[in-house]
Amino acid sequence: MHDHTHSCDCHPEHHDPDHHHHDPEMNEYIPPLYLLAGTLLPPVESDPATLIQNIAGIIDHTLLKPDATSDHIRQLCEEAVTHGFYSVCVNSGFVPLASQLLEESDVKVCTVVGFPLGANLPEIKVMEAEIALLAGADEIDMVLPIGALKAGNYEWVMADIQGVVETCYGYNALCKVIIETALLTDDEKVVACQLAKAAGADFVKTSTGFASGGATVADVQLMRQTVGNTLGVKASGGIRTRQDAISLIEAGANRLGASASIRIING
Amino acid sequence: MHDHTHSCDCHPEHHDPDHHHHDPEMNEYIPPLYLLAGTLLPPVESDPATLIQNIAGIIDHTLLKPDATSDHIRQLCEEAVTHGFYSVCVNSGFVPLASQLLEESDVKVCTVVGFPLGANLPEIKVMEAEIALLAGADEIDMVLPIGALKAGNYEWVMADIQGVVETCYGYNALCKVIIETALLTDDEKVVACQLAKAAGADFVKTSTGFASGGATVADVQLMRQTVGNTLGVKASGGIRTRQDAISLIEAGANRLGASASIRIING
Repeated sequence: MHDHTHSCDCHPEHHDPDHHHHDPEMNEYIPPLYLLAGTLLPPVESDPATLIQNIAGIIDHTLLKPDATSDHIRQLCEEAVTHGFYSVCVNSGFVPLASQLLEESDVKVCTVVGFPLGANLPEIKVMEAEIALLAGADEIDMVLPIGALKAGNYEWVMADIQGVVETCYGYNALCKVIIETALLTDDEKVVACQLAKAAGADFVKTSTGFASGGATVADVQLMRQTVGNTLGVKASGGIRTRQDAISLIEAGANRLGASASIRIING
Repeated sequence: MHDHTHSCDCHPEHHDPDHHHHDPEMNEYIPPLYLLAGTLLPPVESDPATLIQNIAGIIDHTLLKPDATSDHIRQLCEEAVTHGFYSVCVNSGFVPLASQLLEESDVKVCTVVGFPLGANLPEIKVMEAEIALLAGADEIDMVLPIGALKAGNYEWVMADIQGVVETCYGYNALCKVIIETALLTDDEKVVACQLAKAAGADFVKTSTGFASGGATVADVQLMRQTVGNTLGVKASGGIRTRQDAISLIEAGANRLGASASIRIING
């Protein structure tokens, strides 16, 4: 386990398996999950010096190319075990394989939902998350509905994120919200982060890696500033070197998504 | 209706709503749908001269960009009605809006599944298709699992396509299979088309528009040659001019996916 990241162990009430099993006769009021966001969660570990001590432990080792084969995924999983990466991040078609290969290890399985366009129906994202979690995923990186955000349809955006957050919650899985910074203005980035936090997401994440740009120091700073210290910030897209990684961690990232992971940890 | 395309009206048994409602007591043998492929279906209209007479009538007027807003979709639908395009092709988040806007028109609503990577679990594609069809989609353009194809895992590819085909069948909806030519060798393109045909798809389609390349004359010729004249061939990706469209139709395409649709029909 990667205790130093605190990205998993620091949310005890989020991971309480009894939460959903209250006695219905008690008529106990349980507030919607999103109302708890930022009020009860302890701070995430975001001290750069601590995180930089073990960069491998905060990397989602990623392979999402459409032509990746099961052999590529096998190699990805082996690399993750060898180097102690936090997780592998793969398309859902490979979640059963990656889960099986990593069963005996501490490496998590992360997958993507509504990816990379974010423009499918909220109901579809919920079902996609549900099926991926049933197949063994530990974390879900979802893309928010970018067009709805730009049109100011925040109810749609909230419902879209909440659906996946609540699905993840039922599986003790983390939910990261990809805001796709390359397509947003700074104002839209701030609103996107506020909505993700209000909807109960565990992380905001910069990029899919399929848009025109990836993670920048300025965007990570803005996102960390917006969500505060109770949510994670994942930087992803175009991270190629150890120095890239360090700059993004110093800007506020406490998780990195990368395919150049081995190069990153080797300097 | 666009009878000249024959892409919808030519499959009467495919559209028989009673097909699934046979008396279970009869113990009637109903062969799997994919066994019927190419044996019972009448030829599609693919005579270039006939198709070129009304290019608008074979265009799926397409807007799949992740940052498209509902205003953009409204405009797309208005253009489709004005110019008599066959359909609008939108991400599923906009299917309810497009369905509603086009209810009184002959313009169909087409949407995408497993798009654009094709790498999610088959079960997810089935649910995605089901939800999109319930929301009002008339046609489903799905991306096949490219990595499984490349690895020679044809059982996976068949199961993946069949799941969506059979879901579409229950809604009298057409299923097109995007093979993403830019990522395939010629041999892989041939196998992809054979599998799509064997799985009961209605069309093979060249491209998502999100890979490095789009429709080429050579690829459309190869695809038409492979599937014969009982399946449709949709050319998509990078079609910018009327001459592009004519070349692809002459190569064997009987449906076009384009965002430059107005420019195409105006020469």
